[in-house]
Amino acid sequence: MKSEFMKAAIREARKGIRAQEGDPFGAVVVKDGRIVSGAHNSVVKTNDPTAHAEILAIRRAASELRRFNLSDCELYTTSEPCPMCLAAIYWARIPVFYFGCTRTDAAEIGFDDEFFYRALRGQTGKAERRVRSVRLGRKGCLEVFREWSEKPDKVLY
Amino acid sequence: MKSEFMKAAIREARKGIRAQEGDPFGAVVVKDGRIVSGAHNSVVKTNDPTAHAEILAIRRAASELRRFNLSDCELYTTSEPCPMCLAAIYWARIPVFYFGCTRTDAAEIGFDDEFFYRALRGQTGKAERRVRSVRLGRKGCLEVFREWSEKPDKVLY
Repeated sequence: MKSEFMKAAIREARKGIRAQEGDPFGAVVVKDGRIVSGAHNSVVKTNDPTAHAEILAIRRAASELRRFNLSDCELYTTSEPCPMCLAAIYWARIPVFYFGCTRTDAAEIGFDDEFFYRALRGQTGKAERRVRSVRLGRKGCLEVFREWSEKPDKVLY
Repeated sequence: MKSEFMKAAIREARKGIRAQEGDPFGAVVVKDGRIVSGAHNSVVKTNDPTAHAEILAIRRAASELRRFNLSDCELYTTSEPCPMCLAAIYWARIPVFYFGCTRTDAAEIGFDDEFFYRALRGQTGKAERRVRSVRLGRKGCLEVFREWSEKPDKVLY
């Protein structure tokens, strides 16, 4: 059963490659033994740098199920999720995911995931750092936090 | 100028709070001193767990500029990006971002970002781990990588 879901993720990846829509990654979201959504990387086709297979599969599953909490779902992906997709799995509260290729396999065909993992851990040197962050205007931003905190009908997730 | 862009991000966050669309976060993408896109967290409104302000602002800017590479843009966000959004900034090749509140400020009003950062660094204990990952079917997935690698017209980004 599990290997069938992985095969479905592989089929998604193949579809993407053949349609020249993005990179060789596919994913499906499964609930109660049924595939709820499937997607392949569509960065190139849609000009959306966030359109990784896992992000799209999560967005489609959430849209299908009409809720942002997917804690009763599983995700199958052809390659170990990048930090963006891994954090998306956390936010969606998906408790378990299955992956085929590793981030090292992905690095071998030219993808940056391993670098990003190191960058997020602060393990890259200054010369290697690609993104600079600057603190600015905290006071005004805290006022927005306060306004929200005081709302009686806020939704925390 | 920079503080004006942060004010625009704050206005976005306020819009979201008042329309009850999500959480108190706003972001804008700026190119050549002009705002290209703005967004606020819309997780609750759109039932999309990935609909953070930064992700939406990046997607809109990329759509507006018709390219997935935003290396000539800057991002302003009312709060330090979560790992998902930080990795999205990397993927979009945005070289610099400005943020107001810190992840500690966000934790104080109930957001999990700091936990996610620790989880991505592997600094959470087993009991605390919320997402389990399982390796499965690497061989079939590697075949897809190979198929893609051998394509003469592949787009690497």
